Amino acid sequence: MDTDRLRGILENIREGNKTVEEALKDLKHLPFEDLGFAKVDHHRELRNGYPEVIYCRGKALAHIQSIVKHMLAKGNRNILATLAEKEIYEAIRAISPEAEYHEIAKIVVVKRQEIAVTDRSILVVTGGTSDLAVAEEAAITAEVLGNPVERLYDVGVAGIHRLLANTRALDQANVIIAVAGMEGALPSVVGGLVDKPVIAVPTSVGYGANFGGLSALLTMLNSCASGIAVVNIDNGFGAGYMASIINQLK
Amino acid sequence: MDTDRLRGILENIREGNKTVEEALKDLKHLPFEDLGFAKVDHHRELRNGYPEVIYCRGKALAHIQSIVKHMLAKGNRNILATLAEKEIYEAIRAISPEAEYHEIAKIVVVKRQEIAVTDRSILVVTGGTSDLAVAEEAAITAEVLGNPVERLYDVGVAGIHRLLANTRALDQANVIIAVAGMEGALPSVVGGLVDKPVIAVPTSVGYGANFGGLSALLTMLNSCASGIAVVNIDNGFGAGYMASIINQLK
Amino acid sequence: MDTDRLRGILENIREGNKTVEEALKDLKHLPFEDLGFAKVDHHRELRNGYPEVIYCRGKALAHIQSIVKHMLAKGNRNILATLAEKEIYEAIRAISPEAEYHEIAKIVVVKRQEIAVTDRSILVVTGGTSDLAVAEEAAITAEVLGNPVERLYDVGVAGIHRLLANTRALDQANVIIAVAGMEGALPSVVGGLVDKPVIAVPTSVGYGANFGGLSALLTMLNSCASGIAVVNIDNGFGAGYMASIINQLK
Amino acid sequence: MDTDRLRGILENIREGNKTVEEALKDLKHLPFEDLGFAKVDHHRELRNGYPEVIYCRGKALAHIQSIVKHMLAKGNRNILATLAEKEIYEAIRAISPEAEYHEIAKIVVVKRQEIAVTDRSILVVTGGTSDLAVAEEAAITAEVLGNPVERLYDVGVAGIHRLLANTRALDQANVIIAVAGMEGALPSVVGGLVDKPVIAVPTSVGYGANFGGLSALLTMLNSCASGIAVVNIDNGFGAGYMASIINQLK
Amino acid sequence: MDTDRLRGILENIREGNKTVEEALKDLKHLPFEDLGFAKVDHHRELRNGYPEVIYCRGKALAHIQSIVKHMLAKGNRNILATLAEKEIYEAIRAISPEAEYHEIAKIVVVKRQEIAVTDRSILVVTGGTSDLAVAEEAAITAEVLGNPVERLYDVGVAGIHRLLANTRALDQANVIIAVAGMEGALPSVVGGLVDKPVIAVPTSVGYGANFGGLSALLTMLNSCASGIAVVNIDNGFGAGYMASIINQLK
Amino acid sequence: MDTDRLRGILENIREGNKTVEEALKDLKHLPFEDLGFAKVDHHRELRNGYPEVIYCRGKALAHIQSIVKHMLAKGNRNILATLAEKEIYEAIRAISPEAEYHEIAKIVVVKRQEIAVTDRSILVVTGGTSDLAVAEEAAITAEVLGNPVERLYDVGVAGIHRLLANTRALDQANVIIAVAGMEGALPSVVGGLVDKPVIAVPTSVGYGANFGGLSALLTMLNSCASGIAVVNIDNGFGAGYMASIINQLK
Amino acid sequence: MDTDRLRGILENIREGNKTVEEALKDLKHLPFEDLGFAKVDHHRELRNGYPEVIYCRGKALAHIQSIVKHMLAKGNRNILATLAEKEIYEAIRAISPEAEYHEIAKIVVVKRQEIAVTDRSILVVTGGTSDLAVAEEAAITAEVLGNPVERLYDVGVAGIHRLLANTRALDQANVIIAVAGMEGALPSVVGGLVDKPVIAVPTSVGYGANFGGLSALLTMLNSCASGIAVVNIDNGFGAGYMASIINQLK
Amino acid sequence: MDTDRLRGILENIREGNKTVEEALKDLKHLPFEDLGFAKVDHHRELRNGYPEVIYCRGKALAHIQSIVKHMLAKGNRNILATLAEKEIYEAIRAISPEAEYHEIAKIVVVKRQEIAVTDRSILVVTGGTSDLAVAEEAAITAEVLGNPVERLYDVGVAGIHRLLANTRALDQANVIIAVAGMEGALPSVVGGLVDKPVIAVPTSVGYGANFGGLSALLTMLNSCASGIAVVNIDNGFGAGYMASIINQLK
Repeated sequence: MDTDRLRGILENIREGNKTVEEALKDLKHLPFEDLGFAKVDHHRELRNGYPEVIYCRGKALAHIQSIVKHMLAKGNRNILATLAEKEIYEAIRAISPEAEYHEIAKIVVVKRQEIAVTDRSILVVTGGTSDLAVAEEAAITAEVLGNPVERLYDVGVAGIHRLLANTRALDQANVIIAVAGMEGALPSVVGGLVDKPVIAVPTSVGYGANFGGLSALLTMLNSCASGIAVVNIDNGFGAGYMASIINQLK
Repeated sequence: MDTDRLRGILENIREGNKTVEEALKDLKHLPFEDLGFAKVDHHRELRNGYPEVIYCRGKALAHIQSIVKHMLAKGNRNILATLAEKEIYEAIRAISPEAEYHEIAKIVVVKRQEIAVTDRSILVVTGGTSDLAVAEEAAITAEVLGNPVERLYDVGVAGIHRLLANTRALDQANVIIAVAGMEGALPSVVGGLVDKPVIAVPTSVGYGANFGGLSALLTMLNSCASGIAVVNIDNGFGAGYMASIINQLK
Repeated sequence: MDTDRLRGILENIREGNKTVEEALKDLKHLPFEDLGFAKVDHHRELRNGYPEVIYCRGKALAHIQSIVKHMLAKGNRNILATLAEKEIYEAIRAISPEAEYHEIAKIVVVKRQEIAVTDRSILVVTGGTSDLAVAEEAAITAEVLGNPVERLYDVGVAGIHRLLANTRALDQANVIIAVAGMEGALPSVVGGLVDKPVIAVPTSVGYGANFGGLSALLTMLNSCASGIAVVNIDNGFGAGYMASIINQLK
Repeated sequence: MDTDRLRGILENIREGNKTVEEALKDLKHLPFEDLGFAKVDHHRELRNGYPEVIYCRGKALAHIQSIVKHMLAKGNRNILATLAEKEIYEAIRAISPEAEYHEIAKIVVVKRQEIAVTDRSILVVTGGTSDLAVAEEAAITAEVLGNPVERLYDVGVAGIHRLLANTRALDQANVIIAVAGMEGALPSVVGGLVDKPVIAVPTSVGYGANFGGLSALLTMLNSCASGIAVVNIDNGFGAGYMASIINQLK
Repeated sequence: MDTDRLRGILENIREGNKTVEEALKDLKHLPFEDLGFAKVDHHRELRNGYPEVIYCRGKALAHIQSIVKHMLAKGNRNILATLAEKEIYEAIRAISPEAEYHEIAKIVVVKRQEIAVTDRSILVVTGGTSDLAVAEEAAITAEVLGNPVERLYDVGVAGIHRLLANTRALDQANVIIAVAGMEGALPSVVGGLVDKPVIAVPTSVGYGANFGGLSALLTMLNSCASGIAVVNIDNGFGAGYMASIINQLK
Repeated sequence: MDTDRLRGILENIREGNKTVEEALKDLKHLPFEDLGFAKVDHHRELRNGYPEVIYCRGKALAHIQSIVKHMLAKGNRNILATLAEKEIYEAIRAISPEAEYHEIAKIVVVKRQEIAVTDRSILVVTGGTSDLAVAEEAAITAEVLGNPVERLYDVGVAGIHRLLANTRALDQANVIIAVAGMEGALPSVVGGLVDKPVIAVPTSVGYGANFGGLSALLTMLNSCASGIAVVNIDNGFGAGYMASIINQLK
Repeated sequence: MDTDRLRGILENIREGNKTVEEALKDLKHLPFEDLGFAKVDHHRELRNGYPEVIYCRGKALAHIQSIVKHMLAKGNRNILATLAEKEIYEAIRAISPEAEYHEIAKIVVVKRQEIAVTDRSILVVTGGTSDLAVAEEAAITAEVLGNPVERLYDVGVAGIHRLLANTRALDQANVIIAVAGMEGALPSVVGGLVDKPVIAVPTSVGYGANFGGLSALLTMLNSCASGIAVVNIDNGFGAGYMASIINQLK
Repeated sequence: MDTDRLRGILENIREGNKTVEEALKDLKHLPFEDLGFAKVDHHRELRNGYPEVIYCRGKALAHIQSIVKHMLAKGNRNILATLAEKEIYEAIRAISPEAEYHEIAKIVVVKRQEIAVTDRSILVVTGGTSDLAVAEEAAITAEVLGNPVERLYDVGVAGIHRLLANTRALDQANVIIAVAGMEGALPSVVGGLVDKPVIAVPTSVGYGANFGGLSALLTMLNSCASGIAVVNIDNGFGAGYMASIINQLK
């Protein structure tokens, strides 16, 4: 963000090259961004290793490549590309050979500097094995954003004992991401066991009256446990990002 | 169900008062009911104490009274009136002083003979105290139909320990009715703990994106536990009736 | 389920190697499963021939093969794989040559011991021939779980005489599964004819304002017949399982 | 419909008072109605006793009274007022003492000349007694439009024998109106029994996942019987009107 | 439909081979169909040229072929196969070379006797050219069922003059089928112009908030014109059948 | 909008009381509004007679009175209060006796200066008389905003001739607001007749599958006529405002 | 539009070849279109360069070619073909080599005369880059209809500073088209900044609980900013057309 | 939580009164709760002043009074009663005179010990004044749970400058609760300005196609800003609780 044009105006006043009235008129037409309001707080963006993000769905390969080139040229921030099919990974690797691919999560990471990692961890739990892709999108996102991540998969409510056998994992986490499709009841059970923030992610896994994840979404919104908030259906990235912001509060 | 007209036709054939062709024509126009097809199996209706049922919602007081009078005149079967507000109870009691009122369940029972009770029991569990009315409608229905009923209320998934502290009750039941509003996850958890039929009843309890019980209904339909089937929202009577039919299979 | 760790703690108390306070602390961190709460009742699982179940949709071939291998290694329980396309069958047969494929039902069965069969039977009825796949999923599931199954297909309400011509079949069953798409009225008619549990399965067969089975689902939930409970759209397995649990109540 | 202005223009041409060009311009601005296109066919409106219709819902009492006065002043056609609460009836009777009230149907009829009645009849069937109001709205509408109407109420599919015991009534009708709430399956069963037009009317009777009649509406639209068409939820008037138009085809 | 078994029972009574009581028991188990209730009225089926119908969607080619063979063997009724893709036509033609294909309507007709045609006609109107397929399905169905059919396509409300320029066609028809997608307003306009039955067919043509035809369906159900009834989305066959039944009322 | 604080900072620079760096820091914390970005264009607000608007629904009487007092104190702009029940009018009149009430539109106007009126007019058309309230809300809004308004009510598509008899009114308007409930087809027909902007307003008038105006809303969104845009259900104010902005483009 | 037949009738009257009564009867059967009512106002169609429009989706290539040929034969008006995939472009170019293709907008333009361009401009703004296709459909449509168009893309509310940095563009436009998917909040923010007509276009861009654009549609309909009206989801053409009509009001 | 029974068993082993096998059997039937698993982490409940919560909606006055009495008897924890109408407050005050009522928030607080307050604050922002009740429910909840709360009301996106004029408040908060009805776009804008957790609360404020808050809910779920999670419609308590848990992470 550069304030050069603003500074120029002010110096012109000081040096008597501009009257106050002229300056007022200039200010009125100064691009908003130059005034420094663009981002209220951007502490996190200044942290070591904090990545730039590309949302890949619906973007052409060439378009993604040009975005990546632009980012590489600008500096050495890491890059996190989400919803990236394999050919997107290959297109990015063609430009930036250090690109790594997380296949299940469909995430590409270009790591150009070390990521500063917090000491408190995030736990990702899932109801079934079919929620894996969304869960991994959340987990990898949180890791790339600088959080230690634990995983506890396939502990859905229809076999509640698997969850209860692992309460120590719940105890040790700082923030929990609970991913579930079908009836989506897992976050409620987890929220009833712990007193920490639970980010609930409905998945579109299921069939019949599942309606593309609507059933799990409504279940989570209507949870009678406290300390739960919900992100969009299948939005693993959003959950990982939200959990990271919470986990990194100073 | 009377077969007198049919018998009359047959006797006319035997006695030569009717030709076979005439009888065939007669049979074609005989009311269907007289042929005895009306109910395939009605063993239960012949059991001691099995009630006749009146669904009260939307019926005028005078109409209900005339139905009850008709039933009283016909024989001595018990009467079960559901969705009965207090003034309906009073209207029935005016005719039949032995009528009893179950206020929370909104059920009126006129008991005119002893109910034969099975030795196996039905358990009614609820997620919260606000599901009480629907749960009691199910419980009283099952009792009037001749089943011992146990109740285990307020054991919802947000406080899963309350349910787990009472697994002995789950163990002892033959059929379970699980009633829940809001996120409606209770039947899934129960279904994961037992190997017996679970009748799930969504309730319209909740607010916001609950949509009149839709959220709980979808949750239950999408349950990943096996051995669960669902009745309509708030349909305590239907659940009690279904559980009773199952519980009384010979 | 092993209780060795628990026994070890208790023996340590008895032998004075641990104080009661130390033991309390240990118990608090013992995995839940070790305490034996995992399954409240598992009588059925101990019955002869009771299968383990694999839900195939959304699982990779290699993943399914590894699950099957694991099951084969563990003992000689039968295996029931649902929603299995033909290549899944072939993948399983490559490992376990005795695998059989039920093509319409999309079910693979690996039969490794005789199935104990109850003497009471389950009847599966359908509205049309296009509900066949779901009906067969229900029927095969019930058979593999040890129930005799009768089939009465294509007896939908638009040709009610076909159903009425077969009331003897309704009479002889212990539990009925009624499968219907389009308007989904079959379970109501069946429920009005019999006094036995009817498990209703809406199918997604239809077009226009069918909305993927929603019309049939709502019809069944709103049935004015008693003794009906509903499973998810197209959930033949769930219906077969529920019917089996009911049919095998001691 | 008066064509006086049009005739005036033409006469002006004939008499040389207007050029053809002037007349063309005039015609372009002549109110459309005067050209006689307003109603393509209005044979029915010219039949003896054919009523004018007032839809009362949402209209103020004074407004309705002024409409009635206007109709009375215009000629001696009968008047049919639908969705009329009792105070509307009283307001109309204050003006026109011969007004009659059909309380269940909520219809007011002002009969000012005899109604010509067809010899073929319409049959109204209902699923339950709670569909009575809608059914009566249909029946009275059809009667006031000049059709003999038979009624066959409370013959819903959950007690299919009641319908089958009355097939003679189905046989004798020319057009059938089938009214049903809850699961709304009645028209399908009727449509499977007869080869005559069935007008299906979903009602908002029911509860839970009935969604104000949506379940019955979808059932009827998805009927697998042929010869059925559907009107709006609770639209008894529309069904009676449609049945009458069909019944009176020359 | 054969009544031989029934006749046999009656003759046994007459001849004294059976007591009345034995006959009553026999009758109770006689298949329903034998009693002659199967179809209340089947006058139309006995008319010359009345076809048998096959709904093809979701049926395998071999299955369709076996149905056709069965029909051919049974007698010489015509055959009408709906929703038939081209390969279905070819499969039918392989068996029955006289099969004709209506490509737009996706209908196969096997004409084995002349169709008796009524003298009153049905008019099919559409809103746009993209409703053609559904309109032709309705038109061909009505023709094969023995009705003269007129077509008036592409006269939607956004160009109301095209409809108004053709009022003579509306005047001459006995029954009108109005087909429209997108906003689906055509039936309302037609219903306001005529006093004859209008069968409204919503189509799934459109995009955005069209929701697969839901917008047109709701429009038609909510029509403020009288004399309109609606069939399912895209259900051209249903509309043609309904119009034919109405058009052929004696 | 005052820029005094900004001017103060600039003068401090000029006079050497502040360094450029200090001024930059100050600017960063200056309230955004002071910088003059609050409203991009506010030409209309400066026009004679342009009102301030109060949306009354859900606001307490005392709250509304305090808002009005505040407005009266600030200057002499007119006031337009929408969705105002009669007691709100009385509460405003108690403060400002010149308040006028438009009862059908539920609008209160406090006119404190003459309204400058454009020479081009807006036409409001409705489908039925029950859309009157919403239509009047639109019409009065447009008038108070300075537009001549013509009204053409009760010209719905089921009686298309009424609309066609009034095409001169359509011809003379600059912008058209088309208000309709039930099937909501009026804007499509109007849009097909004219080449001017049509603002479509769905109303919640109707019943059955009207779903609170949803049917009319979908109809309007799916219109196949061009030159139509839609506002929210029952949003007469929004339509009047939009039409006024369009009508007053320089 | 030809009025020859009408003129013929009138001349016959003048010349005494027809009585007035005969002429009245003739007029009654004259096609409506001949009377000149077809289009109330068609000023715009007479403007230089105003195109004819083809909506391509769902039309066969051959059908489109025949429409284009017909248009080319009729005169020299420009042609605008929307929703045209590349092979449609090629099919049109085969007939009319001067055809140009706007690939992102999926629009084909055949320019056969110069387009008269207004001096006031339309601004198209989008929330993200994935709304590009719909935005370009709107922009190209508006250009072909004779409007200067400015573009301001990727200024969604999640980065509100990008929008605020460009308020000068908002200031200079006469009409604004705001295109947004996902949460669809852009039109509200724009509507809060300007006092000009904002045409809001929801797009189906998004995932999860986006429901094909429903979320953005509802957001826009519920906007609390005034001066906004909405077109159908993804309806770029409709927005461009509406904006053009507004922009070209005399 | 008492572990006395468990301790008793262990002591019996130590003292030789029970064999290990007997103890194992005993443990198997020990209530789950006694084993100390009831709550995985309950650090917060042990903090000074942490309240017990009563959800009042749907509970009878007497029932609420008995819950309060029970809580008062058990110890001196504070009490927070939500969704409490005035008569509930009075019923509580009758028992516990120190009860205070927050009328807008409909919250009763019984403060029996000082609340430990964190030094980091929560900011509650709202779109309009009609979202006040929900916002205050969130704010008071967060305060009673021990958080300093700032309020920034009526800063909705249609007047985006009000929000931008207050960015300092956004800067100073640790967690933000964004409450909005109608189009619900506020959380997206806030989420684009800050890098802190934003808890989004849709409200049911609005009309027309608002559908009881659904429009705002979908907007928030589909937000393209990161760092947002959503609670149920109107769920101020849930948002306050979630924000508090996040704000108090150690």
